[in-house]
Amino acid sequence: MACPLCTPKNEKVIKSNNLFRVILVDEIPGFVRIILNKHIAEFSDLSLDEYTEVMKEVYRIEKIIRETIKPDKINVASLGNYVPHLHIHIIPRYKDDMWFPDSIWSETHRSYKYETTNEQLNELIKRIKEEK
Amino acid sequence: MACPLCTPKNEKVIKSNNLFRVILVDEIPGFVRIILNKHIAEFSDLSLDEYTEVMKEVYRIEKIIRETIKPDKINVASLGNYVPHLHIHIIPRYKDDMWFPDSIWSETHRSYKYETTNEQLNELIKRIKEEK
Repeated sequence: MACPLCTPKNEKVIKSNNLFRVILVDEIPGFVRIILNKHIAEFSDLSLDEYTEVMKEVYRIEKIIRETIKPDKINVASLGNYVPHLHIHIIPRYKDDMWFPDSIWSETHRSYKYETTNEQLNELIKRIKEEK
Repeated sequence: MACPLCTPKNEKVIKSNNLFRVILVDEIPGFVRIILNKHIAEFSDLSLDEYTEVMKEVYRIEKIIRETIKPDKINVASLGNYVPHLHIHIIPRYKDDMWFPDSIWSETHRSYKYETTNEQLNELIKRIKEEK
């Protein structure tokens, strides 16, 4: 089966470079995913320099999410069990969101209405696009 | 309530330095956790230099787990919803483990017997202790 991250469809790409692309994930407002361009499964399939570049972007995006969306918590995870093509989730969490305090891969506890505004999301996108 | 990672009990510490400690987690053979010494919640509460040092250790440990334990997949995650004191899980996963292909925070699908040997675990510990 073709890898869905090698042949992406309908991704909301915020920025991209030779190494990775950064996309906005609709599931949660302000949920950002970094997807490596190369079809590799693990961080240590990258050179240390490439890894450091990707992880700096995680740090930068986490900071931008905190400053624009102001969630209660950030979750960062790279699992890839379903799709073993390296990608990193950067997820804004709220103390009364559907899964909290559990992971977004856990059972839901309640319903939740996100209050993130379009202004906040536009600011987040604008800042992620800006070069460091 | 006192933070359980500020006053740890019965941790199997493999190594520690000024910034973090590295522990072995009993739940899964070869499951390693990095715990920051400072009580901070998010990666971006670290300076970029501190963050880069921690993430280099994640890379190094992931590589060591792959080379010694040889799992089918590695999961790396920093959630902290229950305990908002920065820590990073580096988790060996197997295609027929209890949760696969779901996260270890998801419902289990089956039982599973890990075949990791003491020799493999001792090699993993030895190599994590070695300075880079």
